[in-house]
Amino acid sequence: MSAKKSSANRRSNPSDRAAISRLSAYEMLALPSPSAVQNRPARSVRRQRRRAGGMLPRALILYAEARSLGRWRRGDRWSCSVVPLGHHPQSMSLRSEIAEQPAVVRRLLDEGWPEARALGRALTRVEHITLAARGSSDNAATYGKYLLESVAGVVTALAAPSLVTRYQAPPSYAHGAVIGISQSGASPDVAGVVAEGRRAGAVTIAFTNQPRSKLGRTAEYVFALRAGPEHEVAATKTYTATCVGLALLAATTAEARGRSALSLAGLAEAVDEAVNAGRDVERLARAIGHAPTVIVLGRGYLYPAALETALKVKELARVWAEPYSSADFAHGPRTLLRPRTPVLLLTSRGATEAEARSLVASLAERGARVYAITNDERVAEKAREAVLLRAPVSETLVPISFVVAGQQLAVALARRHGRDPERPAGLAKVTRTL
Amino acid sequence: MSAKKSSANRRSNPSDRAAISRLSAYEMLALPSPSAVQNRPARSVRRQRRRAGGMLPRALILYAEARSLGRWRRGDRWSCSVVPLGHHPQSMSLRSEIAEQPAVVRRLLDEGWPEARALGRALTRVEHITLAARGSSDNAATYGKYLLESVAGVVTALAAPSLVTRYQAPPSYAHGAVIGISQSGASPDVAGVVAEGRRAGAVTIAFTNQPRSKLGRTAEYVFALRAGPEHEVAATKTYTATCVGLALLAATTAEARGRSALSLAGLAEAVDEAVNAGRDVERLARAIGHAPTVIVLGRGYLYPAALETALKVKELARVWAEPYSSADFAHGPRTLLRPRTPVLLLTSRGATEAEARSLVASLAERGARVYAITNDERVAEKAREAVLLRAPVSETLVPISFVVAGQQLAVALARRHGRDPERPAGLAKVTRTL
Repeated sequence: MSAKKSSANRRSNPSDRAAISRLSAYEMLALPSPSAVQNRPARSVRRQRRRAGGMLPRALILYAEARSLGRWRRGDRWSCSVVPLGHHPQSMSLRSEIAEQPAVVRRLLDEGWPEARALGRALTRVEHITLAARGSSDNAATYGKYLLESVAGVVTALAAPSLVTRYQAPPSYAHGAVIGISQSGASPDVAGVVAEGRRAGAVTIAFTNQPRSKLGRTAEYVFALRAGPEHEVAATKTYTATCVGLALLAATTAEARGRSALSLAGLAEAVDEAVNAGRDVERLARAIGHAPTVIVLGRGYLYPAALETALKVKELARVWAEPYSSADFAHGPRTLLRPRTPVLLLTSRGATEAEARSLVASLAERGARVYAITNDERVAEKAREAVLLRAPVSETLVPISFVVAGQQLAVALARRHGRDPERPAGLAKVTRTL
Repeated sequence: MSAKKSSANRRSNPSDRAAISRLSAYEMLALPSPSAVQNRPARSVRRQRRRAGGMLPRALILYAEARSLGRWRRGDRWSCSVVPLGHHPQSMSLRSEIAEQPAVVRRLLDEGWPEARALGRALTRVEHITLAARGSSDNAATYGKYLLESVAGVVTALAAPSLVTRYQAPPSYAHGAVIGISQSGASPDVAGVVAEGRRAGAVTIAFTNQPRSKLGRTAEYVFALRAGPEHEVAATKTYTATCVGLALLAATTAEARGRSALSLAGLAEAVDEAVNAGRDVERLARAIGHAPTVIVLGRGYLYPAALETALKVKELARVWAEPYSSADFAHGPRTLLRPRTPVLLLTSRGATEAEARSLVASLAERGARVYAITNDERVAEKAREAVLLRAPVSETLVPISFVVAGQQLAVALARRHGRDPERPAGLAKVTRTL
């Protein structure tokens, strides 16, 4: 085994060696000769891993994923270019999944349109849409509601799954569509709502990373998230993939219904920029420090981004992060503000910019420490610290890249609190709620 | 003036004297002779108060409200029977508004059906319903969504008001209904969504305590909440009135659409029981003590009750109360649980009882301190402390009485934290979000 290790080291270039040096002892021992996997498709490597009960070394998977993402160049041997390990070996894999997001977005924009067009045509005449999801997927669904209502023009509800699974009293989904969202496709309640929709004659669609899952088999149409395997408990690339998929769907549905469609230009570049904002994110995390509570605010399209950023902060850093629409914040929760309470504001140029700028001022007056993830230089100047993301992209799509910065903030805060973001306490990857 | 004061005292019965002795010095000085108001309708007293810039003494208003609620008996002079002052003068008026709720519920059940039937007929053929609201009213709207979907069978969405007010990109509300909910009727964003619905040809309805408000004038139909004036910042009786109104609407819409309707039998008695559960609520508040954070869980119909209870605890006690559907709690937020974190579970007998009982056990295993507001004796036994509400009422309607217990818990916690629940820091009664 040690021979294999040294041969791997010998063949790799300097940055690969640095990457490999951060692998665990077990992974080093188990590192195969690159020639053993070099020419095998990712699919077969994943199959082999499944058979081995998930015990194949992570390096092998990283390699296979790098190839499947098209980031593997022929001369590259063990170039883990898709895995920027950063300085924190304990969050290596989560960081790699976060860093894959530009590639995931590009792949969806390259390959997703034909699938989305078929779905858009199916939604041409529906009277309403219901989105069923849990956890992070539910936050993506909330974003989907904004997109489908404003871009496609269709009244869109979030399902109350218990009405199907517990009370056997769902509404009539006839004349409508039901879209189930689950990265694993294994949530019985989400599949249950879709099954009820199908029974009622609704158009049914699954958004999932596992098209052959229960959810995938239940729905009439499947939109594959194409995010590659997501091993970490915290959903990152599947969240982003869901948002991009919903944006494609909103755009094609708008087209099919004779409305002006949505341009996705600049989206991949915006996500690139957010992935590379690590230094600013670290500064922001340092400023928030060890505060036990954080308020996360977003308005309009950025409200779901506030929900998701707060969820990631809770999951990974175990900090009480409370998300609010800044419009709802004044109705009660504002009273939680104490001097020095950190408030993270997600805000973009456009329809809500004036409001956001005055909000920064009024929060600061109340003694809050105001931080921002924004593309608005004036907000960035007024905030104590900000991640300023300048890539030009539609106001409608900004939330996708802002959440990527939020994910990194959650990882950075977790590290500051001494938590391992790859092993969030008491959580499982697939939550099977009925 | 002192003559008037003594004359008021002379005429009142012993419990009135006790009540009056707790009024502030200003109120004592300004106390009018009962004969000055005895025969005037509440309406004219309120008008006089408005003209005087709200400076008429509270006693006068209480008197007028007691009359308008039918709780004034002719021989009663200064009987403040509608105002159970309790032992805490600082929360006198909020407690009185909480205590009025059985009367408000009875009034709606007596008078609300004809109005609700007209609305139900208007909703006979709509394809979908959108509810627009903020703050507490938004929690009532979430409850309304459950009722309208399960009882009336219509897909029901919560509006994203910013799509109307900020982005000028609402969905098409044609073929649907838009229901705006606002106790004051003064929220421009809620009225804005209803105006957009009316423009699109939707059936539009206002649920408001002020039928002549902007919202009331904007909608085609008005359902008057009949809760009487609500002076306190925290919405209590208007919340309950909204929930009862939505239950009436769900029942009449079900009838009009040929579905089996909802029985509201026992509801007023259940609210009575909750108002009178003060001693158990105090014990619960003592057990929660000074914990800086509380998790509030509810599933299904009780999810909106968890939202509203947590909002009240935040508003009044300034405690970080986080509400979750117990189904979503496993997706991330569960990681916030630390040993001795208080978890308040709202749960009822019926479709979710088995799940709730096992949840109590699993939360306790994780070291949480589990408390409950419930009608399930087994949950009450397993929890450290519980408010057990036994009045028989449909599983669908239980959330209305449970929230009344939740309001009292918020008041009790506020007092334990030394806060004045009548003057929550930094909040205004009417929040005018655009």
